[in-house]
Amino acid sequence: MGLNGTFNRKLNMGLIGGGVGSFIGKVHSIAACLDNRAVLAAGAFSSDPEKSKLSAEDYGVSKSRAYGSYQQMIEEELNLPDGQRIDFASITTPNHTHFTIAKAFLEAGFNVVCDKPMTLTLQEAEELASIVEKNSLIFGLTHNYTGYPLVRQAREMIQRGELGEIQAIRAFYIQGWLRTRLENSGQKQASWRTDPKRSGIAGCFGDIATHAYNLARFVSGLLPDQVSCTLKTFEPGRELDDYGTAIIKLQGGALATVTASQISHGRENDLWIEVDGTLGALEWHQEEPNKMVVRRNGQPHQIYTRAGGPYLNEFAQSSSRLPAGHPEAFFEAFANVYASVFDAMADRKVNKNTPWQKSVYPNVMDGVDGMNFITRCVESSKSQASWVSMAHPMARP
Amino acid sequence: MGLNGTFNRKLNMGLIGGGVGSFIGKVHSIAACLDNRAVLAAGAFSSDPEKSKLSAEDYGVSKSRAYGSYQQMIEEELNLPDGQRIDFASITTPNHTHFTIAKAFLEAGFNVVCDKPMTLTLQEAEELASIVEKNSLIFGLTHNYTGYPLVRQAREMIQRGELGEIQAIRAFYIQGWLRTRLENSGQKQASWRTDPKRSGIAGCFGDIATHAYNLARFVSGLLPDQVSCTLKTFEPGRELDDYGTAIIKLQGGALATVTASQISHGRENDLWIEVDGTLGALEWHQEEPNKMVVRRNGQPHQIYTRAGGPYLNEFAQSSSRLPAGHPEAFFEAFANVYASVFDAMADRKVNKNTPWQKSVYPNVMDGVDGMNFITRCVESSKSQASWVSMAHPMARP
Amino acid sequence: MGLNGTFNRKLNMGLIGGGVGSFIGKVHSIAACLDNRAVLAAGAFSSDPEKSKLSAEDYGVSKSRAYGSYQQMIEEELNLPDGQRIDFASITTPNHTHFTIAKAFLEAGFNVVCDKPMTLTLQEAEELASIVEKNSLIFGLTHNYTGYPLVRQAREMIQRGELGEIQAIRAFYIQGWLRTRLENSGQKQASWRTDPKRSGIAGCFGDIATHAYNLARFVSGLLPDQVSCTLKTFEPGRELDDYGTAIIKLQGGALATVTASQISHGRENDLWIEVDGTLGALEWHQEEPNKMVVRRNGQPHQIYTRAGGPYLNEFAQSSSRLPAGHPEAFFEAFANVYASVFDAMADRKVNKNTPWQKSVYPNVMDGVDGMNFITRCVESSKSQASWVSMAHPMARP
Amino acid sequence: MGLNGTFNRKLNMGLIGGGVGSFIGKVHSIAACLDNRAVLAAGAFSSDPEKSKLSAEDYGVSKSRAYGSYQQMIEEELNLPDGQRIDFASITTPNHTHFTIAKAFLEAGFNVVCDKPMTLTLQEAEELASIVEKNSLIFGLTHNYTGYPLVRQAREMIQRGELGEIQAIRAFYIQGWLRTRLENSGQKQASWRTDPKRSGIAGCFGDIATHAYNLARFVSGLLPDQVSCTLKTFEPGRELDDYGTAIIKLQGGALATVTASQISHGRENDLWIEVDGTLGALEWHQEEPNKMVVRRNGQPHQIYTRAGGPYLNEFAQSSSRLPAGHPEAFFEAFANVYASVFDAMADRKVNKNTPWQKSVYPNVMDGVDGMNFITRCVESSKSQASWVSMAHPMARP
Repeated sequence: MGLNGTFNRKLNMGLIGGGVGSFIGKVHSIAACLDNRAVLAAGAFSSDPEKSKLSAEDYGVSKSRAYGSYQQMIEEELNLPDGQRIDFASITTPNHTHFTIAKAFLEAGFNVVCDKPMTLTLQEAEELASIVEKNSLIFGLTHNYTGYPLVRQAREMIQRGELGEIQAIRAFYIQGWLRTRLENSGQKQASWRTDPKRSGIAGCFGDIATHAYNLARFVSGLLPDQVSCTLKTFEPGRELDDYGTAIIKLQGGALATVTASQISHGRENDLWIEVDGTLGALEWHQEEPNKMVVRRNGQPHQIYTRAGGPYLNEFAQSSSRLPAGHPEAFFEAFANVYASVFDAMADRKVNKNTPWQKSVYPNVMDGVDGMNFITRCVESSKSQASWVSMAHPMARP
Repeated sequence: MGLNGTFNRKLNMGLIGGGVGSFIGKVHSIAACLDNRAVLAAGAFSSDPEKSKLSAEDYGVSKSRAYGSYQQMIEEELNLPDGQRIDFASITTPNHTHFTIAKAFLEAGFNVVCDKPMTLTLQEAEELASIVEKNSLIFGLTHNYTGYPLVRQAREMIQRGELGEIQAIRAFYIQGWLRTRLENSGQKQASWRTDPKRSGIAGCFGDIATHAYNLARFVSGLLPDQVSCTLKTFEPGRELDDYGTAIIKLQGGALATVTASQISHGRENDLWIEVDGTLGALEWHQEEPNKMVVRRNGQPHQIYTRAGGPYLNEFAQSSSRLPAGHPEAFFEAFANVYASVFDAMADRKVNKNTPWQKSVYPNVMDGVDGMNFITRCVESSKSQASWVSMAHPMARP
Repeated sequence: MGLNGTFNRKLNMGLIGGGVGSFIGKVHSIAACLDNRAVLAAGAFSSDPEKSKLSAEDYGVSKSRAYGSYQQMIEEELNLPDGQRIDFASITTPNHTHFTIAKAFLEAGFNVVCDKPMTLTLQEAEELASIVEKNSLIFGLTHNYTGYPLVRQAREMIQRGELGEIQAIRAFYIQGWLRTRLENSGQKQASWRTDPKRSGIAGCFGDIATHAYNLARFVSGLLPDQVSCTLKTFEPGRELDDYGTAIIKLQGGALATVTASQISHGRENDLWIEVDGTLGALEWHQEEPNKMVVRRNGQPHQIYTRAGGPYLNEFAQSSSRLPAGHPEAFFEAFANVYASVFDAMADRKVNKNTPWQKSVYPNVMDGVDGMNFITRCVESSKSQASWVSMAHPMARP
Repeated sequence: MGLNGTFNRKLNMGLIGGGVGSFIGKVHSIAACLDNRAVLAAGAFSSDPEKSKLSAEDYGVSKSRAYGSYQQMIEEELNLPDGQRIDFASITTPNHTHFTIAKAFLEAGFNVVCDKPMTLTLQEAEELASIVEKNSLIFGLTHNYTGYPLVRQAREMIQRGELGEIQAIRAFYIQGWLRTRLENSGQKQASWRTDPKRSGIAGCFGDIATHAYNLARFVSGLLPDQVSCTLKTFEPGRELDDYGTAIIKLQGGALATVTASQISHGRENDLWIEVDGTLGALEWHQEEPNKMVVRRNGQPHQIYTRAGGPYLNEFAQSSSRLPAGHPEAFFEAFANVYASVFDAMADRKVNKNTPWQKSVYPNVMDGVDGMNFITRCVESSKSQASWVSMAHPMARP
């Protein structure tokens, strides 16, 4: 069988968002097409039809498929024959629009890849999950950090018990770019990310702590039990938190801390995780993603490197494109999430009963999990960091 | 004036503890004598007089001044003339004995240097502080990490406002050596550090979190307001905590987190601190003490190095013995604390009214502060991480 | 104007090489298409027509344009209309075939991108340069490390005089993968890279020292004067060098050293460079490409980060796709070289007189320079490391 | 047996040099006395008797033993009884005075510790070696970097064959402090180190390349065969080299490069070494001395840490004073060299036939080796980097 298995052809991508000034739309486009398995076929790049057509040029998309709205995209793409029609829609618009757009595509029968956080509220997230659960569509959520080969290495090592019982996790996401009221300068990214109407009930915690939390969950496979959280807004006048720390009691007795900041001078995108097990510990930093430290008492520290050798497990090895020492980074990890989504789409085409809940790519359940995390953190923070239950029927290990 | 100012001679050190199997006693001896300003003149190295005399040989101390008890040391040293008599006693015995020994030396009129934590209980700490307050003696507490030149650089930078208002501090002390029940193997260090009778109400938090807390206090100068703490014992059967995390609301609105572990595989002595101010941020790691990162948004990250140039402040510069690139480390920092104690002793000799409360070296007030921290953390942890007041009349900025 | 300027469309890429077991062909394809400015339109993936068609599937290329030879590709592509026909051919076959293939495409009027080293001999390189010089075609040589944003930053800093006069350069390329006679195991990469028939007169120095040399030249802009070189073959029975060091006297008095190894255990792809100027020094490592150290006596060391702020020059800034802290790596740098080639192609389309000799992308002159370097190094090594002139009429600063 | 074995007491040190403005004298004093095994008993701190007495105060030395010349020290100390008389003389004066002073002490029957380079000329070095060879005295040369626990680990690993056959060594010593004509400002260190009358025939190569060379020799145990060297003086008007690189063919076929600089902006004391063997490779950096990287193809990189566990060999373990993670540094390594000298002195006292030629501490033979290196490097550099024999009858592995 050829490219993309049962499809035997490149997949067609529809991009929602991604117009001028967008950062994440371009990232989705590059990541999805990196391996030549997909082509950007259509876009609703902007709600202004003229601007959308201008962006189409930048993306090399035919103007005829540059739409002025996602509704138009759905309507017109449905009229195209299979193989020409988009196979999936990637939603890269501000948070507050995710739910409505995703729902519309899912109900029209399209697979969806959605940026995170998935929705504005937990309730919306649950509703999307129900829709996905009912139908046979693929829903990928781009917690892109799960795509890094060494993160996948860590997950599989832990699943195999190589670190023993996991007892303590420390996850961090430290940035500095919102140290000032950048949102007042008209900077687009800052503007919507600090606006409760467009970002929901949390700022820093919704935007980045969710990634750190998701990373802890992805790597450890442990389910949350209770959370105690303290959020702060250090920049005067800002409406949402720009700093915070949460302690999570995990089921089985482990303890996780999630700390996030947007006000730490000069810290660029410092997501990192430390995991302590009874047999070993590991540490991984997103800004230097091609290495991971594995430690065991009394032994030399070990530096695992991406593609470094046969000591890496299958999951990590199959997630690399380059030999060791030729660094891979953000786009490649993002592309790995897409690759897993494509694999699932090819499989789903012939096998409707594949249990997607255990997917390698973050799925709609992880979106619920993330919204649950945000919701409970804000709830705890508002009640003096009291312990709040994080139990949720849709949680998956 | 010559060596040690008003003394014009080497100072005589009396060491309590430091016998075979001791780690910290030897450290005190080396640190105190490093600069040739003090000589180890007497020791109560062990409570077994024979063993004490054997240790005397190792230390090059005359057998006649190797005592079988601290009481004997006090008694006999008092009979020696000034200049021959010990000028200060360094207490390096297990925690539970600090209070009684320190009190005895203070009451006999000796200056004291004491290892941390200062006492078993907050009440004992307060009592020692009262004694010191009453008399004109010097009491140094070896929170040795405050002696590192770049830690001193950080403190002075912050005092001068170079980082603006300090808003967030993250302090960590991560070790792995108590990952197993080492205390059951007869290992002496593990044995007393995990024993409530000899270490008090906290294990990991008493032994190392106090260092991280003290470092945050020393560097920032901020006073604590409230603490919420979660302690855990991961090793089954251990009586004291071996892991924990505390959130501290500091006066003025800043937030500090202190995280400590003794169960993280392969982590040796990973004390580090990150400080976020409105104008800049810094980061320092004890295991690589000769550099410190200073960051400001939009500018290249700066690596300050010990003795690296005129950009360092006076406090940092005067704390270095070697040119840049010739690394200094643990002993030298420890020796810096002693050097500040010696300076204070020389000053006190002629100037009884020096306000020791603002001393450069950690003093008895810091001991009270540390015991207050431990006490409140345990209290909070026992009541579901509820917020507990840390206000204390003896706190010093 | 739209995508690719005067073209206003995606460019069509023809790939020579890249079949099963190839590493570099896939890299070219991903890099060229990363930004959606080119599409892989045709391929001579293998000299076996059946295998070539199988590879076409992997690449998503139409079988009708999967050719069994480069000659066939030239012939058939010439019959296609402009816009459908390939706009450039990327040559990723073993070294010994570069010359013939490149010459054929150039003579047929196609732009060429060629992997390095450009040819087997200096004479061939000079011949290719003459052809390029005569016509109006673009010839890019993928010294991909010149595409890294911080390498470009370094080049422009030096051109502007920010480091003063450059006096000493140390360039290294240390690998370990040929520590054993891997070529005897049938490993394809090892096999042709250690074979004089397919790799030319140098092994390690032809394969990787050229990159280090090129990096030194690209960053400093300094021309070589004389070289003294010592090559070694440590693996018994290997026909080409697997280790070596060269000292280059640069015009104007600077000194450069180039050291390369393929036999250093565990060293993956450790290309790095250190540059000393009278006003400052810099250091960059390919395995951690998102940062560069800039040092000046008496000042804190500075860590420049990719996209880290307005302190970066235009050349570096325009070479980044992601914000600071979101690491970019090998593919993105490679894609930057292609992007510069595409820019030049669009410009050349309307402006035949653009002086391509000063191109941002490494061009055919750099290929001559590289072959000159290899030739003179081998010559020097064979004569006891005597000084050999590197003067060459085609050298460009 | 007690302190210092057969001595059963502290050893008495005599220091020559070390007055105001000296750096290395103070280092010797601290290092020798660090473990309480020696006491600074006498000093010829300055050739001005008044200044010498003033320095005595700083050092805590009795004024009666602060001499105005080394001759006076020899004369008066010989009149003191054993046990009070100095047991060894540490020579820390400028290079040009080492020979005469060392010779005088040796001929008077004193053990000597001498800073490096040992003499001004190779002939002087050979003469000292002959004197040492004839008598039963200890002569230690403070190539202090050999005292680092992980350097000692490396040496023993290699001796045991853990890295296989050693084939390539790259040793570097990069500094920046002589980037300008600091010697013209009256800075004392710069002044004598750039003056041929006081430093001999080489500047940078005599001062620091010797350390890098010695480190390569100490770690590998390989003997030199031939050297090709290129020295440069980049600072106009300076009389001695401030930059250079040497290639050394070692006996048995290995290749070593030694590169040294004093003109690299911001480089503080960057001595490092990389060693490639057939079974493994290692890398150690003096500025981060508590770790060493050991690499083997296909395996995770290993970080050995000082005192990190039972995987360290006896030589490394016995060279540590502190547990892992409590960093040791320059003074402690220096003290390790002294400790080995003291051990040898105690042994020599009773055992006149101990073969000191194989001593752990660098001895007079290493001084000859270093002077031979300097001499041959300058010779080669003056004759166009031609290969010069380094064979020497006094060389020791």
